[in-house]
Amino acid sequence: MAVFQQTIRLSTHGECQVLDITGEVNRVVTASRMKEGIVNISVVGSTLGITTLEYEPGCISDLQRALDKIAPPTTDYAHNSRWNDDNGYSHLRSALMGTAKSYPLFNGKLAIGTWQQVVLCDFDSRPRERQVVVTVVGE
Amino acid sequence: MAVFQQTIRLSTHGECQVLDITGEVNRVVTASRMKEGIVNISVVGSTLGITTLEYEPGCISDLQRALDKIAPPTTDYAHNSRWNDDNGYSHLRSALMGTAKSYPLFNGKLAIGTWQQVVLCDFDSRPRERQVVVTVVGE
Amino acid sequence: MAVFQQTIRLSTHGECQVLDITGEVNRVVTASRMKEGIVNISVVGSTLGITTLEYEPGCISDLQRALDKIAPPTTDYAHNSRWNDDNGYSHLRSALMGTAKSYPLFNGKLAIGTWQQVVLCDFDSRPRERQVVVTVVGE
Repeated sequence: MAVFQQTIRLSTHGECQVLDITGEVNRVVTASRMKEGIVNISVVGSTLGITTLEYEPGCISDLQRALDKIAPPTTDYAHNSRWNDDNGYSHLRSALMGTAKSYPLFNGKLAIGTWQQVVLCDFDSRPRERQVVVTVVGE
Repeated sequence: MAVFQQTIRLSTHGECQVLDITGEVNRVVTASRMKEGIVNISVVGSTLGITTLEYEPGCISDLQRALDKIAPPTTDYAHNSRWNDDNGYSHLRSALMGTAKSYPLFNGKLAIGTWQQVVLCDFDSRPRERQVVVTVVGE
Repeated sequence: MAVFQQTIRLSTHGECQVLDITGEVNRVVTASRMKEGIVNISVVGSTLGITTLEYEPGCISDLQRALDKIAPPTTDYAHNSRWNDDNGYSHLRSALMGTAKSYPLFNGKLAIGTWQQVVLCDFDSRPRERQVVVTVVGE
């Protein structure tokens, strides 16, 4: 049993950008040399989300449109008025989606479907430098 | 410390079917013979979700009705027009709910409430064969 | 490799109360004396949620208002009519947000952002005694 941990650094432009990070996550999983366990994928910050999606333009656009309804990208948020900020909707989306998810490590690979990718959603209103911590616990 | 992993196979009929899989998960937990740790429950694919719910017809119907509002089961999705498909709403629901959750293993049992069951939601538009990977990491 | 587990007990008043539990979680993490791994934070019950949020009154109020739209605090739920209960909306919010989340343990600390706190949301309609199980798996 062991822990293997690496941090991925990414530049994002925000505005509900949906990034496929499956390749980066798989590189950490391969480097861990483990066969079975749990892989936690976590992005540091309060204006981001992690989930899985079939990474094709249609699904991406459907997700963005749904989030525009659930947490409209307007300025009408209590967070904005309190801090003279513009990203209240980004904080809300992050709290609803969650910033970290865990998937099984099975036969040395992340056990997700062929049409299922791990995506980072940057909900913030401006470009940022982001850190994704990938932790493999297993053997 | 050890890892114990088993795959549960299930036939589903989709259309936002909500299935109680607590019994199947508990059988894997018991077979692991571990007492403390983390249990990850993950379903493979991009049109499914895992969560917990009081498994009674009222709560199931309330969840289905809420998802019908959040991601209506219509054909008006970019995924559908792009791929001549009909399950854009299924992909969206899966991305919002998430396909994997982790709960504590405590005293040899899954630490969830008496009125709290682990449920698999199959959002797809047709019957499918599904795989749930249960991973126990602990001792 | 080891497992370290502790239960935090809290009195809540419900009605979508959002509580910052980062301090309590960090005390368990410190007591574990581990440096790297995964930390699972799970609340027992079917009318609660765990997520992260910038813990300031604006973000809290924005989250509460969004949940009031997604799952209105009315009595019009199938769970209510079936069981003569009043917390159908609480069950729905819990199923949508999820009752457990996992974050990385990195350098002996929970790897979350400076403006990112772990929050317990009690969606129930009345005060309750709650249990949060914190499980650290790592080394």
